[in-house]
Amino acid sequence: MEKPYVVGIDIGGQTAKIGLVDARGSVLTQTAIRSDDTSDPNEFIHNLSEAVKKLVNKEYSMSDVRGIGIGAPNANFYKGTIENAPNLKWAGHGVILNFTDMMSAEVGLPVRITNDANAAAMGEMAYGVARGMKNFIMITLGTGVGSGIIVNGELLYGHDGFAGELGHVTMVRNNGRQCGCGKTGCLEAYASATGVARTAREQLETTDKPSLLRQIPAETISSKDVFDAASQGDELALDIFKFTGHMLGAALADFVAFSSPEAIVLFGGLTRSGDLIMNPVVEALNDNVMPQWKGKIKVLFSTLKESDAAILGASALAWDLN
Amino acid sequence: MEKPYVVGIDIGGQTAKIGLVDARGSVLTQTAIRSDDTSDPNEFIHNLSEAVKKLVNKEYSMSDVRGIGIGAPNANFYKGTIENAPNLKWAGHGVILNFTDMMSAEVGLPVRITNDANAAAMGEMAYGVARGMKNFIMITLGTGVGSGIIVNGELLYGHDGFAGELGHVTMVRNNGRQCGCGKTGCLEAYASATGVARTAREQLETTDKPSLLRQIPAETISSKDVFDAASQGDELALDIFKFTGHMLGAALADFVAFSSPEAIVLFGGLTRSGDLIMNPVVEALNDNVMPQWKGKIKVLFSTLKESDAAILGASALAWDLN
Repeated sequence: MEKPYVVGIDIGGQTAKIGLVDARGSVLTQTAIRSDDTSDPNEFIHNLSEAVKKLVNKEYSMSDVRGIGIGAPNANFYKGTIENAPNLKWAGHGVILNFTDMMSAEVGLPVRITNDANAAAMGEMAYGVARGMKNFIMITLGTGVGSGIIVNGELLYGHDGFAGELGHVTMVRNNGRQCGCGKTGCLEAYASATGVARTAREQLETTDKPSLLRQIPAETISSKDVFDAASQGDELALDIFKFTGHMLGAALADFVAFSSPEAIVLFGGLTRSGDLIMNPVVEALNDNVMPQWKGKIKVLFSTLKESDAAILGASALAWDLN
Repeated sequence: MEKPYVVGIDIGGQTAKIGLVDARGSVLTQTAIRSDDTSDPNEFIHNLSEAVKKLVNKEYSMSDVRGIGIGAPNANFYKGTIENAPNLKWAGHGVILNFTDMMSAEVGLPVRITNDANAAAMGEMAYGVARGMKNFIMITLGTGVGSGIIVNGELLYGHDGFAGELGHVTMVRNNGRQCGCGKTGCLEAYASATGVARTAREQLETTDKPSLLRQIPAETISSKDVFDAASQGDELALDIFKFTGHMLGAALADFVAFSSPEAIVLFGGLTRSGDLIMNPVVEALNDNVMPQWKGKIKVLFSTLKESDAAILGASALAWDLN
């Protein structure tokens, strides 16, 4: 009989979340460990492996687990590595870790790894709103803008394993905002949560529209503040969502010209703003795509519970393992 | 024994070129018929089929032909159709032809079809500079800008078969040039042969730089004129190539963020300008990609003879047939 479970792990800068997942996408049991309490990769991998065994062996058995899927920043699916990940204390600039090999040796199970946005796309295809789709694009709207591109039912990894950096296409070619990646004008500098906050500060400074946001010290304004103000009908806040959505929708139109997906799935904090972000996104998408695609590309919000999504996405990597 | 030959057909607005091709990519014999002397699709397909049989049977045999591959505008690989092709007299707006079925019935061989830029990419992978590559992007620089995207050794067709319209990503978001597709600011409106001529007219009008191009009536200036002037060191003409190459290179950087290809292959008339176009393309590509890709993406000119390339590309579709 095929082994009935997989383990999904979502590694972030502060914590690593671990879950045991069944074929229907239920997280049966989960736990978390700190990922920032050591700068020794061997120690972190040991801690993580022990936590996996402890979690599984409490009510289940490691012999029922098919394998482990991991989502992590700067992870390379082809090589099984985590490379130069500034947000991971034990894998910073200059460090290349053969993560899957190291962890597999500790736990005695096959391990696969991919970056977080790719894992989210896998999760959406295995358990979420993209179930049954063979061609779609996942856009994660968090602190940054990530992407996972599914082509013919498979993740697009490209020549080097790092394909799908759609947060870093250039949207503003002159005087664009500085982006964390070193470029200027990237989509991420506008359509992320931090981008929304930057737009708010810009608008507050360059217009004199009255706004609830003026009651908040400019430097502390968050995308959540903008959402709260917009929910109360604040005009400036509504403008900010329109600007953000239009920027994202225009970018999506170019992505459609590339891979002609059935749908684009949006995931992450900004999607909590619902129609405030969805309406301008769809409007700009349809204003900017070629005629044959107008009104034909579905834009959907992820249906995965945000707390489970990262674990589920990572776990989806492990179903192909034996 | 496997059948040793395939037929490649390149259908354009005025002519259809037909060639018999062997496994090494040699065009053994070729011919052409008019494609604009009838508006009846049945008649055109009959003429084309008869021409194929006549060509093959002269020195070879139809029983040695594995199948027929066709490159045509607005062709859909999945459906085997040519749809709404304004440049084809017998397949204009509103017409959907089941081209492969119709032709297969006439010739008694399996037939596959794809659009011209996709065919070019297949040709490059089968016989050209991209031999052995699994991930690359073909950009055709002719009257328009076309593209064929190879992912994991296969053409990217997307959900509907129309993926790879990279000539129609938006490069200029405000006051962009009108494009033939109905949008404004498309790459094609700048980086095609017609785009170069438009840039020349714009520059002649908006600057008063002396230039050899001023001796030519503005309305008749072609990209060839700009090339000739640039070859003689004409500064304005050199500026035009720089502008064109920078626009294309900046677009390529976004394509890299999408599919992370090993190489980008340039094909078509504009590539005859050699370094005049290559240098600014590579410069802008490296100025606009994320740090991990700087200096790592090969930009190559096609090595296929332009007269054979379209036939070879189309023929490459037929090797998978039995």
